[in-house]
Order: sequence, then structure tokens, then C-alpha cells
Amino acid sequence: MDRADQVRVNPEKLRAAFMKPNAKLLQLDGLNPVFDMDGSLSWGAVIDASPDNDLLLLGIDGDVPHFAELTGAGDAGPAANPALWQMLGNLRPNEAAIYATARSLVDWHARHRFCAQCGNPTGSRKGGWARLCGKDEGGCGAEHFPRTDPVTIMLSECQGKVLLGRQPRFPPKRFSALAGFVEPGESIEGAVARELWEEAGIKVRDVRYVASQPWPFPSSLMIACTSVTDDPALTLDEDEIEEAAWFSLDEVKAAMAGDASAPFIAPPPFAIAYNLLKHWVDEQER
Amino acid sequence: MDRADQVRVNPEKLRAAFMKPNAKLLQLDGLNPVFDMDGSLSWGAVIDASPDNDLLLLGIDGDVPHFAELTGAGDAGPAANPALWQMLGNLRPNEAAIYATARSLVDWHARHRFCAQCGNPTGSRKGGWARLCGKDEGGCGAEHFPRTDPVTIMLSECQGKVLLGRQPRFPPKRFSALAGFVEPGESIEGAVARELWEEAGIKVRDVRYVASQPWPFPSSLMIACTSVTDDPALTLDEDEIEEAAWFSLDEVKAAMAGDASAPFIAPPPFAIAYNLLKHWVDEQER
Ligand SMILES: [Zn+2]
Ligand SMILES: [Zn+2]
Repeated sequence: MDRADQVRVNPEKLRAAFMKPNAKLLQLDGLNPVFDMDGSLSWGAVIDASPDNDLLLLGIDGDVPHFAELTGAGDAGPAANPALWQMLGNLRPNEAAIYATARSLVDWHARHRFCAQCGNPTGSRKGGWARLCGKDEGGCGAEHFPRTDPVTIMLSECQGKVLLGRQPRFPPKRFSALAGFVEPGESIEGAVARELWEEAGIKVRDVRYVASQPWPFPSSLMIACTSVTDDPALTLDEDEIEEAAWFSLDEVKAAMAGDASAPFIAPPPFAIAYNLLKHWVDEQER
Repeated sequence: MDRADQVRVNPEKLRAAFMKPNAKLLQLDGLNPVFDMDGSLSWGAVIDASPDNDLLLLGIDGDVPHFAELTGAGDAGPAANPALWQMLGNLRPNEAAIYATARSLVDWHARHRFCAQCGNPTGSRKGGWARLCGKDEGGCGAEHFPRTDPVTIMLSECQGKVLLGRQPRFPPKRFSALAGFVEPGESIEGAVARELWEEAGIKVRDVRYVASQPWPFPSSLMIACTSVTDDPALTLDEDEIEEAAWFSLDEVKAAMAGDASAPFIAPPPFAIAYNLLKHWVDEQER
């Protein structure tokens, strides 16, 4: 789907897209997706959107405009429903990206109804891709754009084993890659080194980028990296990490195969941590 | 320098850092750095900070805490002063990172004095690494964190030549890599492909990550990538790109050497675009 940035900024084209009889509206239950019987995202007609809500232009596929409704639903934290996670994991990649975009933007609008610069109310503009603090409404004129927070998620390797950890909120036996936000003034590589030092007490080298993936809880860009360390001694930040350990190739393979005898439960396949572990396994076996 | 995240969140440790007689204060002129005679960043004593301003804990180097003052100075757009850019380009990497952090955070506080969720005034917390909309002051209790905007900056290669473009605000003859924000719901690779399609009308494949660098104007994480295209025909988005062209290895090398006969002027060495071009040249010559 074309994100159609030229249409967002052109009120006439935007209105024409909205008026098209084939224009679709993404069905959402709060911030959660609604699924069709076949497990794909459910779409209605844009004509059925509430006139009280602004619309978000998700993009145009062929000649079919796709919208979502800015309902004011805010983030209620990570969804605790395993069936929902299962359904999300089975979405095709383009549908997963559409849902990620919609969820991030609906949530952003709900939590940014006021201008951070002057405190006045703001309104949606550019097909939902900006909010304006209008001077005509007594505001300061600032334009605000949806945020995307870069997050590093990383492995470290030492003597053929890989470091995984448990956050206190994880389900029992689940271990995954450590993660943390990139701070202002940092590179990706610097953030990886700082996080592993802060959370696990290890000094790493040879940080390498592997892959990236959007993660709409609420609006992160996950950036997956590997690194190497020479000293496996760990000092955990126990506010962030409940437990961490080095796992061998065989242990990681058993966990990823869902083996009952594996020493831990691997992250689910739609999480970038799963792909990062798969990348590490493939590299070991090359 | 250790960013000392454990000290930020501990009011007692933060106060002890502030009370240390050796604690340093970064000298700023608005958002611009002040330089010592040797071209390094200028530091004063934290005791000389105005009692009206909150302080930002930049980090702790050995046992020396480093602070900056949250002066309320906001971003006035890219600095137009070539001498300042020259000085910035000559900073050592750790000083460049410290300045980038300070500039991004001072500017963020200045432009986020109100809660985007409810419109109430907010106050600095955690040594300047958060703002709180305090319930005791009639706010909603939301905590806000400084934003870092991921930006892709990219080359595309076609038949041994590389694509560079000119933004309307560039100095004469300057060409650089195309760039654009990563949007919610996108991967890095997806953003690179979308930007090159939107701005230059080319379809690319084989997007590869090269390097990253913070860029505090106001608070970006620059993510540099290469890509490949099979069809060199360009369709420019003339709002964003004034001119774009394919340059040969020899042309790029001449520009990077500062040759007067080169067909364009290369980006300056402290810009990540320079390193991206250098990476491309090295790959061609390998
Ligand atoms: Zn305003
Ligand atoms: Zn609030």
C-alpha cells in the first residue's frame, strides 16, 4: 500500500479520497484489531465512520483509499490476551504494518490533544499525520508530528553462548533479548553498549545491525543488533532484569523448536527477538 | 562518560552529584556551544548555574558529574553560521555526543513545558530526563520522555553510479544523500524504499544498514543505508528535492577530495552523509 504522502497534505485530494465509494475503514476495538473469519484485518466502509471523529489516511492501494477512525482510544499497556497475540502473529506482513500504523497513530492522537509548547488544544491535520496548535484558536501555531521511538534489542555472544534475560512481567520460563530506548545524543551502537552495561554489567564490542521492525505498543522502531563480549560475568540491574543467563546453541535451538526439555521458552515468532535469535543460530551453523 | 541512569532516578544521589565541588556545568549560548581556546567545549562550575533553572545531568566521568542548565532556549532552526559548523566538526566524538545530548534535551524541555495529554504545565524530573504532569498540581500524572526521531539517510546505486540530491536550502553546488523520517508502522528498510520512491521516483532493493549518528537539530537519530536500483529514471518531488543526479565513482572521489573541478560539493566530514559516501567509495574500490 502506498502511504500517499502527497494526498495527506492536499485537502482537495484528501476529500476526494474520502468521498470515493470504495474507500475502506479499518475496524478497531479500542486499539485492538478486529479480525475476519479468515484471520485477516476486518474493513468496513468509510461512510460508516462517526462524524464526530477525525479520519486517518492509512494509504491508497491501487485506487482504494484506506482510512482509520481517530476514536480517542489511548494505550492501556501491553495487551495481556494470548489469543490476540496469536492472531497478530499470523497477520501477513503488509497487514501487520497497516495495523501497526493505525494503532500507533490512533493512540498518539488520543494522548496528544494539547500543545506541549503552550498548553492549548490542538486539532488533527494532514489526514491524521499531524496536529496543529491553531493561531486562529488562540494557539502558538506549532505543528506536532507523531513520534516513533527507536529501541535497541540486542544479543551478546561470549565463548559460543548468547545472553538472554527475563523482565519481571514476562510469562514463566520466557527469556528474550535485552532491550532499551536509544537516548538523545546516542548512536544505535552506543545505545546497545550502554544498555548491556547498565542492565547486565558487560562491556561489549563489535556491535552489528541485524534487522528492524515497527512495534506499535505504543510506537517503537525495534532495531536488532548483535555484539560480542570477552568476560561473561554478569551484574544485573534488578529493577529491569529479573534473571539473565548465557545459553548454548543447542539450548537456543531446543527452545526455538518448542522442545519441552529446553531450559527456557523462546519469544514468539512475530517478535523481532525471535528473528534475532534465528539470525544468531544461522550464523553459528554457517 | 557514564550516563549514570541510576543517579537520575535517585533524588539523593542526584543531590549529592550536584553538591560535589568538582561538578561541571556545560557553557551554552542559547542552544549553541561555547568553545575554549583549544576548540573543545567550555565548562564552568555547577555552583554558577542560575537558581531559576532546572539542571540536566549529562553524566559522570570518573567521579566528576557533568550538568547543563535547562535555560528555556528553543530551537531556532539549523544554524547558518559556517564557522560554528566548522568548530562542531572538529569536536572529539565524545564531546560531540555530550553537546548533542545537551542541545537536544535543553530544546526538548523548552518546547514541552505543557502536558500533551491534558494541557497542564509540567516540571522537569529525573535529572532532566523526564517531565511530570503532577497530580498534586492538578495534572493527569502522565510522565513524558524526550523524543528521538529516527531518520533514514540513503544512497541508491545504479550501473556503478550513486544518487545524490539537492534540497532547496543547500548552499550552491552542494549535493548530499536523500533523507526522511521513519514513520510509525515502518521498518528502516521500508522507510528507505518509501523515501526513494516518494522523492526520486525509483524502486529500490537490497537496502543495507551502514552506520548511525545522533544529530541534535533538534533531536534525530540518523540511520545511514545503501540500496540498489535497476532503472535510473528519476521523477523528483520538487517540494523536497530541487535537483538530483547519478554521480560516478571518480566524480564522488573528486568532490570528497575538495577538487575545484568536481561536479558538486560534498557534505562536510562530520555529517553522516560524508561517511556514507566514503563507505560507498571504499566498497567500489575493494
Ligand atoms: Zn501551542
Ligand atoms: Zn497531564
